[in-house]
Amino acid sequence: MEHCIITIGREYGSGGRNIGRAIAEMLDIAFYDSEMIHITAEKSGFSDDVVEQAEQTVTNSLMYNLSVSTSQLPLSDQVFIAQSGVIKELAKKESCVIVGRCADYALRDHPNCLRVFLYAPIESRIKRVYEEYGCNGENIRAFVRKIDKKRATYYQHFTQCKWGECLNYDLCVNTDIGVERVENALVAVARGMLS
Amino acid sequence: MEHCIITIGREYGSGGRNIGRAIAEMLDIAFYDSEMIHITAEKSGFSDDVVEQAEQTVTNSLMYNLSVSTSQLPLSDQVFIAQSGVIKELAKKESCVIVGRCADYALRDHPNCLRVFLYAPIESRIKRVYEEYGCNGENIRAFVRKIDKKRATYYQHFTQCKWGECLNYDLCVNTDIGVERVENALVAVARGMLS
Repeated sequence: MEHCIITIGREYGSGGRNIGRAIAEMLDIAFYDSEMIHITAEKSGFSDDVVEQAEQTVTNSLMYNLSVSTSQLPLSDQVFIAQSGVIKELAKKESCVIVGRCADYALRDHPNCLRVFLYAPIESRIKRVYEEYGCNGENIRAFVRKIDKKRATYYQHFTQCKWGECLNYDLCVNTDIGVERVENALVAVARGMLS
Repeated sequence: MEHCIITIGREYGSGGRNIGRAIAEMLDIAFYDSEMIHITAEKSGFSDDVVEQAEQTVTNSLMYNLSVSTSQLPLSDQVFIAQSGVIKELAKKESCVIVGRCADYALRDHPNCLRVFLYAPIESRIKRVYEEYGCNGENIRAFVRKIDKKRATYYQHFTQCKWGECLNYDLCVNTDIGVERVENALVAVARGMLS
């Protein structure tokens, strides 16, 4: 059987990263989140900093496009292509959980991929961000919305699909039902895909 | 602990009703789908036919509104209110699975309710409708879309929320991952809510 890959898209502050790490441990498979930055850098020849920066950027600017030669793709596109290649290689190598990075799209034709999206009401996410990162209370709401918007724009740009729209995923879970319940649901499905 | 209620919204042809019945059996709790018509009729004094018809109707027509006295709500609204009352009573009485009927909205303040939405790509749903109901092949696509649109309009009218938008639910599952996997995910979460 093909390796089982679980991709996790997530609203900022929904707790998606921790849930991803937890289910990888429960299933005894690899976990990739920020590790992807270094792997992509190594494979592509870009520095870690360039990859990290490009992951948060979508280049649509006409000025930018005029400033590079017509044969050269914008840096963010080059990094995206390199990272998608890395994701496909990982999927060939082992079962794993991959957080973010439009991995669901890179693996859209993979026969054993569970595409997950985790979300929660804004108030719960503000609370989690405050508790985990201790951000300045007044600005958290705007910050959470800004990160969500960045993720939505990035996803839409590279996939032409709407971020968080359920038809783009196999399983969408509101993390307000409780972290343990979310993990149980994901593990229940993934165990059947791993066996 | 409060009774555990699982509400199931579903795209037409996603297999939601059968999944709902199956998980009710697996969890050994009651199951309500079309049974709701008769119960609502009994409680409200309307006939089964009137309830069934009203369930598929949203009355926005000015002509209709002019044809009834100003103190009288449209029939579809009266039936909706009666049915929401029935749903709340059932939730007080026993743990159960309820399919459709905006039950997620009626129980929005219930402390132990799992709001599920089941969906699938249109091609899979056309295939399921053809296999289960044997409808005329050529018209199935239009028929599936028509029923979806009716459900979306009904939901939007009575809840002011968008049907199938994940933030209105706790768990949204693409039934293309396989009926057994969907059932496993739902049961894994529900068991924690029943214990």
